[in-house]
Amino acid sequence: MQQSPYSPQSQSVSASATTSAVQLPSLQQTYTAIPRVRPQTPLLDSIDTPADLNAFSSAQLIALADELRLFLLYSAGQSGGHFGANLGVVELTIVLHYLLDAPHDQIVWDVGHQAYAHKVLTGRRDQLGSIRAKDGLTAFPERAESVYDTFGVGHSSTSISAGLGMSLALRYQGRPQTVACIIGDGAMTGGMAFEAMNDAVQQDADLLVILNDNDMSISCSIGGFSRHLAMLWESGYQVDISDSGQPIVCQRPDMQGFDRRKRHKEMRDVPQLEDNLFKAIGFTYFGPFDGHNIPELLRVLLLAKQVKGPVLVHVYTTKGKGFAPAELDPVGYHAISKLPDEQPHDTPPAAKKSQPALKYSQVFGQFLCDKAHEDDKLLAITPAMEEGSGMTDFARQFPERFFDVAIAEQHAVTLAAGMATQGVKPIVAIYSTFLQRGYDQLIHDVALQDLDVTFAIDRAGLVGEDGATHAGVFDFAFLRCVPNMLIAAPKDENECYHLLNTCYEYQGCTAVRYPRGVGTGAAIERPAQTYDIGKAMIESVVGRDDAPLKLALLAFGSMVAAAYSAAQDIAQQLHCQVHVVNMRWVKPLDTVLLEEILADGITHIATLEEHMLMGGAGSAVNEYLLNESAAFKHHRPAICNIGIPDRFIAHGAPAEQMADCGLDVAGVVSQLKQLLK
Amino acid sequence: MQQSPYSPQSQSVSASATTSAVQLPSLQQTYTAIPRVRPQTPLLDSIDTPADLNAFSSAQLIALADELRLFLLYSAGQSGGHFGANLGVVELTIVLHYLLDAPHDQIVWDVGHQAYAHKVLTGRRDQLGSIRAKDGLTAFPERAESVYDTFGVGHSSTSISAGLGMSLALRYQGRPQTVACIIGDGAMTGGMAFEAMNDAVQQDADLLVILNDNDMSISCSIGGFSRHLAMLWESGYQVDISDSGQPIVCQRPDMQGFDRRKRHKEMRDVPQLEDNLFKAIGFTYFGPFDGHNIPELLRVLLLAKQVKGPVLVHVYTTKGKGFAPAELDPVGYHAISKLPDEQPHDTPPAAKKSQPALKYSQVFGQFLCDKAHEDDKLLAITPAMEEGSGMTDFARQFPERFFDVAIAEQHAVTLAAGMATQGVKPIVAIYSTFLQRGYDQLIHDVALQDLDVTFAIDRAGLVGEDGATHAGVFDFAFLRCVPNMLIAAPKDENECYHLLNTCYEYQGCTAVRYPRGVGTGAAIERPAQTYDIGKAMIESVVGRDDAPLKLALLAFGSMVAAAYSAAQDIAQQLHCQVHVVNMRWVKPLDTVLLEEILADGITHIATLEEHMLMGGAGSAVNEYLLNESAAFKHHRPAICNIGIPDRFIAHGAPAEQMADCGLDVAGVVSQLKQLLK
Repeated sequence: MQQSPYSPQSQSVSASATTSAVQLPSLQQTYTAIPRVRPQTPLLDSIDTPADLNAFSSAQLIALADELRLFLLYSAGQSGGHFGANLGVVELTIVLHYLLDAPHDQIVWDVGHQAYAHKVLTGRRDQLGSIRAKDGLTAFPERAESVYDTFGVGHSSTSISAGLGMSLALRYQGRPQTVACIIGDGAMTGGMAFEAMNDAVQQDADLLVILNDNDMSISCSIGGFSRHLAMLWESGYQVDISDSGQPIVCQRPDMQGFDRRKRHKEMRDVPQLEDNLFKAIGFTYFGPFDGHNIPELLRVLLLAKQVKGPVLVHVYTTKGKGFAPAELDPVGYHAISKLPDEQPHDTPPAAKKSQPALKYSQVFGQFLCDKAHEDDKLLAITPAMEEGSGMTDFARQFPERFFDVAIAEQHAVTLAAGMATQGVKPIVAIYSTFLQRGYDQLIHDVALQDLDVTFAIDRAGLVGEDGATHAGVFDFAFLRCVPNMLIAAPKDENECYHLLNTCYEYQGCTAVRYPRGVGTGAAIERPAQTYDIGKAMIESVVGRDDAPLKLALLAFGSMVAAAYSAAQDIAQQLHCQVHVVNMRWVKPLDTVLLEEILADGITHIATLEEHMLMGGAGSAVNEYLLNESAAFKHHRPAICNIGIPDRFIAHGAPAEQMADCGLDVAGVVSQLKQLLK
Repeated sequence: MQQSPYSPQSQSVSASATTSAVQLPSLQQTYTAIPRVRPQTPLLDSIDTPADLNAFSSAQLIALADELRLFLLYSAGQSGGHFGANLGVVELTIVLHYLLDAPHDQIVWDVGHQAYAHKVLTGRRDQLGSIRAKDGLTAFPERAESVYDTFGVGHSSTSISAGLGMSLALRYQGRPQTVACIIGDGAMTGGMAFEAMNDAVQQDADLLVILNDNDMSISCSIGGFSRHLAMLWESGYQVDISDSGQPIVCQRPDMQGFDRRKRHKEMRDVPQLEDNLFKAIGFTYFGPFDGHNIPELLRVLLLAKQVKGPVLVHVYTTKGKGFAPAELDPVGYHAISKLPDEQPHDTPPAAKKSQPALKYSQVFGQFLCDKAHEDDKLLAITPAMEEGSGMTDFARQFPERFFDVAIAEQHAVTLAAGMATQGVKPIVAIYSTFLQRGYDQLIHDVALQDLDVTFAIDRAGLVGEDGATHAGVFDFAFLRCVPNMLIAAPKDENECYHLLNTCYEYQGCTAVRYPRGVGTGAAIERPAQTYDIGKAMIESVVGRDDAPLKLALLAFGSMVAAAYSAAQDIAQQLHCQVHVVNMRWVKPLDTVLLEEILADGITHIATLEEHMLMGGAGSAVNEYLLNESAAFKHHRPAICNIGIPDRFIAHGAPAEQMADCGLDVAGVVSQLKQLLK
């Protein structure tokens, strides 16, 4: 336990200290530019572990917030990364590390976007520039990286469950350590946060949950929960905490700098102040407080952490706090790219990026708009990824057909199933990694009932800097075992457009799976076509027909381009003939084409996919050839499966990740040579 | 729209009719025995579609409830099945079908346990005896079975999502049809119900949610939500509905027959009446009402269905209502087996079942207790399946180490991960089909961090009468692609015990996957052993060593016994030698043993598993042999994979299901003959 004016051992001193401390300016500097030169941060430079904070006065903590914010700005300019949420929790992070004794006490973040300040204060200041780079810091808390990172987080809404697990295990072992979970208002819409709150009350666990309410998830906090938070704001009241830890309802003090959106004003039956959701479920509730006011946070959290049972402290923060452009445009500044070399400091770094090719998400967005114009049965659903999924234009053009259901993947899938029972054609736009959250619903509510739902699965394969938590490398395996599902994997942007159309037109449950970012740059050829279901294409045949070695490269989705390049190399180097096949469909497989190439005297087969080897598309090919193919039984060509090996792939640039897995052209060529040996 | 005294077209008549109707007895008969002879049910017999209810008076509806309840009792005695929940919703089902115009209006049930009365009233009265039998009625609503079954349900907490999807699709199409969702208090703890409520408020959808609060989920409603419901009961207040649909807070009328448990009395800070969770999230709340009082339900639901926006009507019901033994023991009467031929009527039918062999769930329960005695780091978690998972003894012996987290699979998995970070060893007991709900959490929170969590996966494979919604046939595929996971599949009860021990002792994330019900009857040999990880066993070698055909049967888990029997048949009929291998581990595979048998001159290999063929354990064998095995490249034995084909397997007796898939001995032999041809 730390010894300081704010530690529990000197609570009376603390109380008076905080009272006087309230006189200090609660907000520090607001910056207007991202510094290009490493700013002077003498206080920050003195902190190598959180214990170094012990000697700080309130005034110094406030000054430290300035330095830390400036350092985060500088660092984001150098390396890019998540931005707004990190600036918003500078004060909260400082206060938590001041009051708690990490790593003895457990600080559990929800979603990692807000953990940069935490990383800086826990010995990783000088590595922050490496964030998201290969072998550099991860973008999210990671247990392997630091003892201060108590729980890895990439997906949302996990912190209360994880923190409750810690709290219960500590209680069982008789270890009185504090567990504090920090969860955003967006993350709170995920159902598992409610599941965890329900259980925390059941267990009467000592758990400090801090609701970091920045009035905004990635796009926009929506729904009943957000409405509830808006109501708490509009009530003008505050549940303060007494020196003995009791709730005291009072008039909310003036909170400068917060301009909360008023939501759902048009709705009937606006709830009253007394309908407090957290209190109703059994938490002791305190708030709302100013999450940028260090003295106030010190006073409140010191007392709150000593209250027994599950406690929720509700603080307001501002995304992008302290950087004027981000405060004005929190969505645009959710994350930024690193500053280009010659860009003026005060221009939003993202704004000037040139975009030579369409991103797959933009292709999806264009398909949505095009199709919606011609088919009024099309509805589209996103679990809080309007922008990331490329749906902004669609949402603007067809607001009555656009459904952002908040961070709620389970609900998103079943909602679509419910819609499909009524004769409309819903499309669920979802990242591959987040579809893992709606897996059971996909099986039971969609596929088992064979309902007409199209899944547009974005960010499939390796995703680069976001790392293993966002990789979409399990979807072929977990989808293809589900009866009734069709699974398509386009080789480029143009094919993505037409496969989306093909799957949408199909009456049943389908998935189109496409990567993050840009592809080959293929232009979209309108109008939309309807491909044959389960029909592959021979992309090219390289080499002479009389070559002794005849290799078939069965490539899925993003691997078609690499297969094509590898085929040139291999055909030249080994004097063999190579069929490059764009498989297009993982399910159903084009078994007719497989039989044709087998009949053509193929001696070797390689499958290529940006997916785990285990259970992936290559396994589908194996299953067919071994169990059903007549031609295979005669010829018996050698087979190898090329894909992602059985380990989690750390973050890095996409090309680095592909090379790491042997999925770049050189890696593919090397594996093919092994096969052909 | 129906024309009746209670239809909206004649609301004033309705109001007076219901007022006078309140004088009628609200509860009908209480039975003490399950009839063995088809009871006389003249009113019920007159109902072939819900429209036949239109002409009924209130008194007739009440009499109908008697008949329907008696018929359900009789039917359960004949065919077994879910029991308590169905008796509890007799009145609610009658009133809903009276007031709504199904199938034009949409009635959406949550979990299927409560849909028997609905099935009887919607043209399936005379088929109810076939429920859960092969080609008979399903145990749950199923779209393919009836137009009145609007949405298939097997897993919990889906109805609000599905109903909201319907409501939004109907609104978009300008179709003014009512959507009513019925959800239990247990199902409400599932996070996706909160996700859906959040979104319903956002959408301001016209949606009637009926909370069927029977004070009990399968084991026991727990947690903050249950506490909230208890508080609503203890407050003594009721939010009634005015004739114009407005909420009116009043003293709750006397509710005879309800004896609600008082919960969490010891807790600090009991919330006040005004903290209404549903109102807080933005629903219009009415309740609680007596869910067995037909006139009251008629009055309330007629008015509530006309209120705009999301509405929740909270009704109390009693599980097992109207059958005295079930009211006294609702857990024991959750479901019953059919009456044995000579059993006296008034003995609980389940009580006298003799149990020759241990169920796998009992094996797990014994392991838990044994291990907990010797290792105080063991903690165990269940998402509301204490009894089904065989944990009752453990929960009694080690209450401080037992965690029933309610219906909350996502939370259960991450809770375990959080615990594991603090040096304890949690075991998550979960049905295979429900693990689909915690898949993302298993990947990110457990496997990615390689935390020491053991999954005891029950009800894996085909599950018989519960049908496709409860089949656990995807787990090999969705688990084996996840790095760090070990997956074991015991051949019998004894091996299950030791594999549980082996996986528990392993420092990392593991899963033991075992079937529903009993296995071969193998007795447990104590003390617990620790098997070698990834080590298979040659179970037997049948036939002569100099046979020209040498077959290896690589059997996983429950298929070892069938493999052994099939081997005898095949060896005799085809004069070949058969190695029967108990693979024990799906991951890691015993590749050393595979190389050994390949070196032994194996000419044919068959894999056997009670799992989907696509991506299953057989695929793992294929992947190894094709990609890595040196011996395979020389010998090239023919391979076939035996498993569940790519379709959903309908309910039926377990043996019927296995035969349907070709997984009985005859089916296996037939497939092996095909391979050896």
